[in-house]
Amino acid sequence: MERADKDLAFMLQYENIAWFSDGKVKILDRRVYPRKVEFVVCSSYHDVARAIRDMVTQSAGPYTAAAAGMALAAYESRNESEAKQRDILCDAALCLSTARPTTSRRMSLITRGCLDAAFKAMEAGENVCDSIVRYTVQINDMRYSKVYKMAQYLADMVPTHGTVMTQCFGETIVGQLCRVLKEQGKGDVKFFCPETRPYFQGARLTATVCRDMGMDVTVITDNMPAFVMQKEKVDIFTSAADAICMDGYVVNKVGTFQIAIAAKYNKIPYFVTGAPDKMHSKIDTVTIEMRDPSFTLQAMGVKTAADGVKGYYPAFDITPPELVSGVVTDTGIYTPYDLDRYYKEGNMGEYEMVI
Amino acid sequence: MERADKDLAFMLQYENIAWFSDGKVKILDRRVYPRKVEFVVCSSYHDVARAIRDMVTQSAGPYTAAAAGMALAAYESRNESEAKQRDILCDAALCLSTARPTTSRRMSLITRGCLDAAFKAMEAGENVCDSIVRYTVQINDMRYSKVYKMAQYLADMVPTHGTVMTQCFGETIVGQLCRVLKEQGKGDVKFFCPETRPYFQGARLTATVCRDMGMDVTVITDNMPAFVMQKEKVDIFTSAADAICMDGYVVNKVGTFQIAIAAKYNKIPYFVTGAPDKMHSKIDTVTIEMRDPSFTLQAMGVKTAADGVKGYYPAFDITPPELVSGVVTDTGIYTPYDLDRYYKEGNMGEYEMVI
Repeated sequence: MERADKDLAFMLQYENIAWFSDGKVKILDRRVYPRKVEFVVCSSYHDVARAIRDMVTQSAGPYTAAAAGMALAAYESRNESEAKQRDILCDAALCLSTARPTTSRRMSLITRGCLDAAFKAMEAGENVCDSIVRYTVQINDMRYSKVYKMAQYLADMVPTHGTVMTQCFGETIVGQLCRVLKEQGKGDVKFFCPETRPYFQGARLTATVCRDMGMDVTVITDNMPAFVMQKEKVDIFTSAADAICMDGYVVNKVGTFQIAIAAKYNKIPYFVTGAPDKMHSKIDTVTIEMRDPSFTLQAMGVKTAADGVKGYYPAFDITPPELVSGVVTDTGIYTPYDLDRYYKEGNMGEYEMVI
Repeated sequence: MERADKDLAFMLQYENIAWFSDGKVKILDRRVYPRKVEFVVCSSYHDVARAIRDMVTQSAGPYTAAAAGMALAAYESRNESEAKQRDILCDAALCLSTARPTTSRRMSLITRGCLDAAFKAMEAGENVCDSIVRYTVQINDMRYSKVYKMAQYLADMVPTHGTVMTQCFGETIVGQLCRVLKEQGKGDVKFFCPETRPYFQGARLTATVCRDMGMDVTVITDNMPAFVMQKEKVDIFTSAADAICMDGYVVNKVGTFQIAIAAKYNKIPYFVTGAPDKMHSKIDTVTIEMRDPSFTLQAMGVKTAADGVKGYYPAFDITPPELVSGVVTDTGIYTPYDLDRYYKEGNMGEYEMVI
């Protein structure tokens, strides 16, 4: 995770701008990026958990941040007894994985993996902190290689000189898609990124990644996708997902459902990227998190509506399988109606790894 | 037009916050409303034209502002010869009606009406300025009474305890709809107003009118309508229009098309309010105005996207008749497929009036 020296654009492509170094965890502050490139520096795993909770990093960022937090916990407890260090590491795992309730199940896969790596190192008399860092690099590399394969399948769906519409911040997949498009000689593909209110992830993050990868990218407001689909001949709509349920329902940043409806109306396919989520066999198990309603009454910190007007902020929405043309995984594109096949074929989820 | 003393909420309901008084035209600055209640004061009809061009007032506001500008032109030229005053009034009519190209055809109906009133006053030896003011009050009153009738037909489509979704700023109709709903004992109807990026007319203007009329109103971001339709049981979607073409295509603020698609998908009717536009027999005659693209790269004046990212700003979009459940006029609700009937029945357009 010693990545401070690497090129920022490359890091953004991989999105996991969080690393452990010299007894500190540094996390790119996505709340102000790209206006400012600032890092939150954490001196304890509690600081890291707080940064995750406070939305300093988003999308896949929290997973790497949590792993870096585990390495920091090992560093903090390096002079303690083995029993005490185990206690501290277990506390860190709980603290970090529950920092944000909606992703705690996936997060616990990461912290559990870090714990396993730490305990093995203790048994073998190796450096605990190093072993967690090594595990994190491994799991990230595995994820990157999976996403790279995903990007290859997705890029095959994009015609030469084509146009892609995204939604929110598609994690690592956006950068990898740009890379593969270039490898395929489709470097002139155009991107349209809806800005993704109320947090502007599309305008701030996705568009910046596309730009950094040298692609032609245009930001539109969230009421323009249907118009742009018609007028600018969009070829595919694509997004990542917070969860792809086993019954084919897709949970993703609010707005995905609406763009998917517009895509269907305009006869444009919608491809969602990611592994199906075994933790959600049916959509009924998903609760849409409602966030602070007043957040829709402002934009970039400036109040828009008058006093006495209510706000409303569902973090996600649900897109039914009938609007999903395909689920793009590391082993191919699946129909949303037969996602069991992914696991029947022996694949593993994005964050599952045996070390 | 001596309305400065009237209640602001009432004025907002009628939206035409522009009036001539004491040799000045005052226009509510909608660019900063509701954060600030400020008026742009114009000392010449050129100032008024500039204010219209600079978007100080929107929706139906420019029509009253143009009429007030004509009264000001008469005032400015009050000591000139009749021939000279005619010249000045003709110049003012041209200058004001072309201040914004997309609405110049409707605007010219207003300025032409003002000219007619002025010339008649000259022939009769009456005060020219007063005659223009009188004409403006007349045409506004006529419009208000037409919109009130429209609101009655529209309110009939809203069930008791129902929920209405709007788009952009629906001009006078929003306030009138609230008024009629209350008259019908449906004062508990809820409104959801998409904020209408990039200019936030929904958040800033529509929501404020609903609030001022004492209704329950919630602002959502432009990526939430489809979700809200499902989750909050929206009963109707309604908008005004910049043009309802005779072939049933609706031109309105960008986003209308997308919400209409989402409404159809969710089996919610879409009612557009306004008279069919005889000046557009077919949609082919409409050109969608593209505005400054950089405007989508900021929100409330704060930059959102990084340098090197493109913007894109179509002012309007086009909703086809298949997505329009009904065109709500002052004489009833028409199918978008038979709008000739409106004129065959002897009705007149919104801004047509013989004096």
